[in-house]
Amino acid sequence: MRIETNDVLVLQGDSTTDCGRARPYGEGWGSLGNGYAQNVGALLDGVYPERHIRVINMGVSGNTSRDLRARWEEDTMALKPNWVTIMIGINDIWRQYDRPLHKEQHVYVDEYEANLRAIIERTLPDVKGLVLMTPFYMEQYRKDAMRASTDQYGAVVKRLSEEYGVLLADTQAAMDVYFQQYDPISMSWDRVHPNHVGSMILTRCLLEALEFDWRKGL
Amino acid sequence: MRIETNDVLVLQGDSTTDCGRARPYGEGWGSLGNGYAQNVGALLDGVYPERHIRVINMGVSGNTSRDLRARWEEDTMALKPNWVTIMIGINDIWRQYDRPLHKEQHVYVDEYEANLRAIIERTLPDVKGLVLMTPFYMEQYRKDAMRASTDQYGAVVKRLSEEYGVLLADTQAAMDVYFQQYDPISMSWDRVHPNHVGSMILTRCLLEALEFDWRKGL
Amino acid sequence: MRIETNDVLVLQGDSTTDCGRARPYGEGWGSLGNGYAQNVGALLDGVYPERHIRVINMGVSGNTSRDLRARWEEDTMALKPNWVTIMIGINDIWRQYDRPLHKEQHVYVDEYEANLRAIIERTLPDVKGLVLMTPFYMEQYRKDAMRASTDQYGAVVKRLSEEYGVLLADTQAAMDVYFQQYDPISMSWDRVHPNHVGSMILTRCLLEALEFDWRKGL
Amino acid sequence: MRIETNDVLVLQGDSTTDCGRARPYGEGWGSLGNGYAQNVGALLDGVYPERHIRVINMGVSGNTSRDLRARWEEDTMALKPNWVTIMIGINDIWRQYDRPLHKEQHVYVDEYEANLRAIIERTLPDVKGLVLMTPFYMEQYRKDAMRASTDQYGAVVKRLSEEYGVLLADTQAAMDVYFQQYDPISMSWDRVHPNHVGSMILTRCLLEALEFDWRKGL
Amino acid sequence: MRIETNDVLVLQGDSTTDCGRARPYGEGWGSLGNGYAQNVGALLDGVYPERHIRVINMGVSGNTSRDLRARWEEDTMALKPNWVTIMIGINDIWRQYDRPLHKEQHVYVDEYEANLRAIIERTLPDVKGLVLMTPFYMEQYRKDAMRASTDQYGAVVKRLSEEYGVLLADTQAAMDVYFQQYDPISMSWDRVHPNHVGSMILTRCLLEALEFDWRKGL
Amino acid sequence: MRIETNDVLVLQGDSTTDCGRARPYGEGWGSLGNGYAQNVGALLDGVYPERHIRVINMGVSGNTSRDLRARWEEDTMALKPNWVTIMIGINDIWRQYDRPLHKEQHVYVDEYEANLRAIIERTLPDVKGLVLMTPFYMEQYRKDAMRASTDQYGAVVKRLSEEYGVLLADTQAAMDVYFQQYDPISMSWDRVHPNHVGSMILTRCLLEALEFDWRKGL
Amino acid sequence: MRIETNDVLVLQGDSTTDCGRARPYGEGWGSLGNGYAQNVGALLDGVYPERHIRVINMGVSGNTSRDLRARWEEDTMALKPNWVTIMIGINDIWRQYDRPLHKEQHVYVDEYEANLRAIIERTLPDVKGLVLMTPFYMEQYRKDAMRASTDQYGAVVKRLSEEYGVLLADTQAAMDVYFQQYDPISMSWDRVHPNHVGSMILTRCLLEALEFDWRKGL
Amino acid sequence: MRIETNDVLVLQGDSTTDCGRARPYGEGWGSLGNGYAQNVGALLDGVYPERHIRVINMGVSGNTSRDLRARWEEDTMALKPNWVTIMIGINDIWRQYDRPLHKEQHVYVDEYEANLRAIIERTLPDVKGLVLMTPFYMEQYRKDAMRASTDQYGAVVKRLSEEYGVLLADTQAAMDVYFQQYDPISMSWDRVHPNHVGSMILTRCLLEALEFDWRKGL
Repeated sequence: MRIETNDVLVLQGDSTTDCGRARPYGEGWGSLGNGYAQNVGALLDGVYPERHIRVINMGVSGNTSRDLRARWEEDTMALKPNWVTIMIGINDIWRQYDRPLHKEQHVYVDEYEANLRAIIERTLPDVKGLVLMTPFYMEQYRKDAMRASTDQYGAVVKRLSEEYGVLLADTQAAMDVYFQQYDPISMSWDRVHPNHVGSMILTRCLLEALEFDWRKGL
Repeated sequence: MRIETNDVLVLQGDSTTDCGRARPYGEGWGSLGNGYAQNVGALLDGVYPERHIRVINMGVSGNTSRDLRARWEEDTMALKPNWVTIMIGINDIWRQYDRPLHKEQHVYVDEYEANLRAIIERTLPDVKGLVLMTPFYMEQYRKDAMRASTDQYGAVVKRLSEEYGVLLADTQAAMDVYFQQYDPISMSWDRVHPNHVGSMILTRCLLEALEFDWRKGL
Repeated sequence: MRIETNDVLVLQGDSTTDCGRARPYGEGWGSLGNGYAQNVGALLDGVYPERHIRVINMGVSGNTSRDLRARWEEDTMALKPNWVTIMIGINDIWRQYDRPLHKEQHVYVDEYEANLRAIIERTLPDVKGLVLMTPFYMEQYRKDAMRASTDQYGAVVKRLSEEYGVLLADTQAAMDVYFQQYDPISMSWDRVHPNHVGSMILTRCLLEALEFDWRKGL
Repeated sequence: MRIETNDVLVLQGDSTTDCGRARPYGEGWGSLGNGYAQNVGALLDGVYPERHIRVINMGVSGNTSRDLRARWEEDTMALKPNWVTIMIGINDIWRQYDRPLHKEQHVYVDEYEANLRAIIERTLPDVKGLVLMTPFYMEQYRKDAMRASTDQYGAVVKRLSEEYGVLLADTQAAMDVYFQQYDPISMSWDRVHPNHVGSMILTRCLLEALEFDWRKGL
Repeated sequence: MRIETNDVLVLQGDSTTDCGRARPYGEGWGSLGNGYAQNVGALLDGVYPERHIRVINMGVSGNTSRDLRARWEEDTMALKPNWVTIMIGINDIWRQYDRPLHKEQHVYVDEYEANLRAIIERTLPDVKGLVLMTPFYMEQYRKDAMRASTDQYGAVVKRLSEEYGVLLADTQAAMDVYFQQYDPISMSWDRVHPNHVGSMILTRCLLEALEFDWRKGL
Repeated sequence: MRIETNDVLVLQGDSTTDCGRARPYGEGWGSLGNGYAQNVGALLDGVYPERHIRVINMGVSGNTSRDLRARWEEDTMALKPNWVTIMIGINDIWRQYDRPLHKEQHVYVDEYEANLRAIIERTLPDVKGLVLMTPFYMEQYRKDAMRASTDQYGAVVKRLSEEYGVLLADTQAAMDVYFQQYDPISMSWDRVHPNHVGSMILTRCLLEALEFDWRKGL
Repeated sequence: MRIETNDVLVLQGDSTTDCGRARPYGEGWGSLGNGYAQNVGALLDGVYPERHIRVINMGVSGNTSRDLRARWEEDTMALKPNWVTIMIGINDIWRQYDRPLHKEQHVYVDEYEANLRAIIERTLPDVKGLVLMTPFYMEQYRKDAMRASTDQYGAVVKRLSEEYGVLLADTQAAMDVYFQQYDPISMSWDRVHPNHVGSMILTRCLLEALEFDWRKGL
Repeated sequence: MRIETNDVLVLQGDSTTDCGRARPYGEGWGSLGNGYAQNVGALLDGVYPERHIRVINMGVSGNTSRDLRARWEEDTMALKPNWVTIMIGINDIWRQYDRPLHKEQHVYVDEYEANLRAIIERTLPDVKGLVLMTPFYMEQYRKDAMRASTDQYGAVVKRLSEEYGVLLADTQAAMDVYFQQYDPISMSWDRVHPNHVGSMILTRCLLEALEFDWRKGL
């Protein structure tokens, strides 16, 4: 597993990361929210207790990549992380569909890429590793307009992960496996916020990217 | 307009009719819920005040056609309505997709048709008129599994309206017009419960079936 | 219909417009309050979705014309509306009757006219259209003191609409039709705040002034 | 003053008597509600403490004369009062105006008289005295429909007080004096439930009927 | 009655005046608190409506004479009253008994007199009239320590009313009449805050000092 | 100390015992209420842990001796106590003073004695020991009517403790020592419910009767 | 993995299983509580969606083996499970230490074994498989009295799993690994209810017993 | 007893002193929290009422010795106490065990000693007496890591009490007596915050250090 002893891991993102985490710091007992961040903390701590990894959830509900970029220095770099994960973009897209007339809230794909680049370039020199997680949309039809947009933004994430040589967690691909068995409506009211099953799928997807040893100690 | 002076109109259905109506009777000031039923009451009363029409919302959130049939005598016929509208079926379908393992809650299309027939046949002899409203799903892709099911159940409604010679309000068709302009996510979190715009579209669809005169008095 | 594609419409007024709208902006899903503003938004969006009209409710409960004038620049012009509606005055009058000794809260008819003039003249150069809505009082006896005052203030509104050549919605006249059938007490506890039926009457009165096509698409 | 040492006085009526009294017995410290009943208790006890009069408020919000008659035995006679006051009727009338289609809730004037007669005849043999209080409506125009009805029901009260030789408190007349100075809207939102000033006017009207000595001990 | 048309009356004091009045101004409908101030407002307005007297309750719970003097300019004189009543002192005394070790909260009788003098001298030149109300303690045994203190402070009030030639309301004397019939515990849990009966006794005591005509209009 | 290893001690009484204890059993951690019962439990358990004494608070707020007698079998004997303490009577007295007209709630001294006798005679054969605690009233003037009554009822308790040869805790005497230094108002708002200091005085009084060794283990 | 397509799995136990599950059935979205049961549901559903396994949490906070046995027929067998897991016993033990005097609440080891035997024998004929989970206590010193008891009860569980040939999850052993790195106080306030890390350790321990394939699909 | 007439006693510490005390000053009726501070106030006041000792609880939940030192001047010296007690340190230790990765919150033993020295040296010149209370941990096994740390910090307290010649209350020793009879889990969920029994043990330990006369007046 790539995260090492005494490393600090900061999980960044929007409401799909936030999930009700504590303020100002979403770390430790009961503070990581009830989404994948809590599972990640539980598994890193429960399976690798000897590594003493500090896991901090810094997701903020409603954030777009524009918001995340604006608070990056204070909310990420100031914590001096060794590892950072980023899952952002669904609000960049969603506002285009659920509030189509509020154009001031839309973040289009070019700005999205620029925001991500700025964040990555600010971060890479100061960390051991970075994981880019694609945004995902719980809709199985690829031609659905918002799903198509999500795939487009996800493609940017994948391209940047290659270009910068950082780790990738393809959350949409992991989710799509599940939708071969069940309708997305069984996992989410709004197709954006997953239930406990979706959170576990995200957890597995992210930890696999970090070469987590699932059977360690069993 | 077909509803006449001193008539009683009962609106029946599930949460898309209920919308927080008062108990035990959802009629009058502040009691009709905040969905289409309130708009219908407001327009019948505001445009045709001289007809003194009594509008009662009897929708119950979560109801399937099985539930509606079970409470029909007590909750509809006992009110001695002159007119009845029925919009039911989305929960018959939804449970098949959001709780796929809870088969005891699923109402399949054959039972759905049987339930509707029983309701219609019990009602017709005692009322002046009946309006069947199709269930609707705020999803524009026809091949989506739950949309396809909704269209299938809606086809039953249309066939029965012809067979029994009762009025029809094709709510799905009315909704689909809107989705040519906007993504359904702008109207509903869960694609089942519409916002104020969707409620008004349902209102217009139902009142048009009743030959409402929109410009009366203007 | 006079409001055109991509136009912004701001609805201004007091509690009869406000109706619990969201702050700071009363627009979009669940934010327009539960009065006529929500109906206006629902009908403009539901019947003319292809026009992408943005509707913003900026009413503030308790406002007199003095208050409205004071916040006009910030709360109306700063939103760069193409269309504006104004319904103000009932609190100018009401305080004279329900708090007769609190003279500092009374706005008499001369100041009322001056306030309206200032608002209209500030607005006209920057908008496509303006609708003046008369204040209304749900009392059918014309000699009632407060009704007589409301008629007097309403006459100012009508005179100014002619003088400045702007649209007029005579809400009192629309309401009075209803009271030929029902006592005002069936519509309002306090004769100032209407129920859902009154809200729909206001909606029809305003939209008719805007040449809304009621049967479009039916 | 006519109420004597150790007498029990029961005040009966609807919400204008109830005013939030305690259940099951509205007597004593903080339990008489915040209307005229509390003032009556305060003045009988504060001015005539040596008489040890027990005052019980048994008003029930929403009651019509039909409701009052139904609960008379249990809620009045069972308390073995020496004196009883009754103010009832406004809901008999109000429902005809605020819920005009709910005819099952209307109590017309013939039934009103019959209900009052039944109550009076059941009571007189067992008490020292009875005060009939007219219902009142805070509307100064006599031709207003609901005011006219209230005057009609009040006339029944006056006629019965003469016929049975019981005391009368003409609350409407007492109220009307006030409206020569102020609009009723300064006293009540809905013209039915008075503010503290109205409660005091009712108090004076009732106690005067009982020959209360206002300046005793001053 | 000494208060004249269009006069403003300010009632000042501690919690026995405050009684939950509205902030910042305790005047008008539902705002005068539930103590004697509300009764005074109700009787001045209900019996003398043609005088249009404005009654403002400015009592503040917990106040001593030291506190009252400190806020006098802002809380009394700034309201430009024509008449002022003052009932203060019980907290000056009470703190000596219920918090005997908190000497910084005690206001002894010399300071009490000095505070009252300063208030009276600041006020008299600008008003038509001033009523001094004695503090009172609901304890019938004159030798009780706190009752004795209250009598001592009350004697100061009486002496100053004579010296400055202002009106006096001897509330303790009015209360004592009642305690010939009932134990004080029937009127108050803590012997400081009276129930509705005590509030009415205070009301009568104060209005009598103002030469109120109790039977006016009866 | 007289209570022995594995004994069960039941504390009975009214609100001065109850003090918010848990239901149905007021024993153990956080369940004994915040009055003397909690102190007794804390001292018996903290000073004599090796005796494993079970302490149960069964006081019920508002109880008179009449109420206590009625629930004695179920609420005391059914718990099979080895030791019982009883402090009852203040409500028997208080109702005579705070609700003087509600004679049905008064328990006079003869009935009080009869109730106590019945309780004592039912209990003695089945327990190791019984402690009678006098009721107390936080008023230092012996001629105060309610204090005099409390002394009268307390005398009954003392006489019965002698007659039946059971232990006595003279709580009034213990309280009176304190009032030589401070006014009762520093200990209680209503002179019935003591603060933490009064609770500790009761605790000491009761434990002394039980021959508690205060310096054990110090 | 041993649980097969369409199987029903019931998780039974006390608060360490319950964790705030929904009533009456703790299954599906948001209903499994926030402990290991939710993780188990998330992993079975997320990793094996094609098996359509129904997971039901029936734990009840506060239960001892005595309580569980009493409700076994209704709460487990009536659900017709194919697989059952049982983790019970910590309350049998805990009450002996936190309420040492309440012996009626203690369940000693002989009764514990008898209860488990009765449950196992009732269940085995009707299910495909049964997993016995040992109770655990988050205390690393084996000589601690309650830890020693827990080991004793756990030994019973292990012995019965061998005797009846059912699966075993040794939760205490899994927990003990973690305490080589951290003090138990980092995982639990009371050493009985684990945090999210402890819940994940329990999850892994139970799923491993079921031969769960952790890397399936990765 | 060493505290003399009119002395002020300030109790300082963390949550084990705070126990929900009032802000800003935790003194007097209902304001001392529900821990040992309230017992101390009750016993000093109840047994020595003639000394008029003022007891102020200034504990702040969560405080370490670092926090206490930072607020010492404002929160202790500014109150001009004659006597001060200090119980601090458990949070210095606890954070090392319950949040092992949050090293910024740990206060190690050298800093602890330095903080205590600074506090003692600032205080001694201005007071009559100072009592140092050891921190305590409700765990009976001396080798438990956190218990061992607590003993180490407690040894510092004892050494400083000797070095500076101030009074000592060895709370851990007092607690340990109890644990010879009962498991600590009967006294505390988290082994840090004691129940009412533990609070009484602390009370006795502290008062004994002050040479309190337990049987005074009995």
